[in-house]
Amino acid sequence: MSVFARRLKEARKAAGLSQESLGIRAEIDPMSASARMNQYEKGKHEPNIVVVRQIAAALDLPEAYFYAADDDMAELLRLFHKLSREKRDEVLEFAMKLGGVGPAIK
Amino acid sequence: MSVFARRLKEARKAAGLSQESLGIRAEIDPMSASARMNQYEKGKHEPNIVVVRQIAAALDLPEAYFYAADDDMAELLRLFHKLSREKRDEVLEFAMKLGGVGPAIK
Repeated sequence: MSVFARRLKEARKAAGLSQESLGIRAEIDPMSASARMNQYEKGKHEPNIVVVRQIAAALDLPEAYFYAADDDMAELLRLFHKLSREKRDEVLEFAMKLGGVGPAIK
Repeated sequence: MSVFARRLKEARKAAGLSQESLGIRAEIDPMSASARMNQYEKGKHEPNIVVVRQIAAALDLPEAYFYAADDDMAELLRLFHKLSREKRDEVLEFAMKLGGVGPAIK
């Protein structure tokens, strides 16, 4: 199963939504929402980035979450997404300190 | 410009690689590496997830990096990817504490 399919399924279940209701919240045509979400979760199709963005917004997750191969990275993204700007800065500084790393990519 | 195109360009430049040399390191056919990487950076095409994985590996970045819409999230992913398991756990705990959040999605 692709990373995307796995993350989608786990996030939908964590939100307590059916495939259909998530699809509708993600602005997919209600007539095909259930079938399309099922195909995405089965890994038969991967949605384009616009649809990924809509699904992410419906689940209050960042798009990057769905591409996190490692569970700890997915969890970090989920948490980081919900933090305030100030707290995000704190997490970033903490990670930089642990990594002994200098300035950001720019 | 798409998030993917922007992240690809900034990460390639930070690594000091040409489009062609990154393409070749990412196991793209050397005959088309330069043209394909150029199209990806221009946002004309978005590579499939297998190619994204090869590009990510060539740049020592996680795949999720290329889908991080926010700069601070991209930077966090870059750092987190390079940390040891123990340090990753520390970052995750720190973020959980700041978020006042309980157990992970499962």
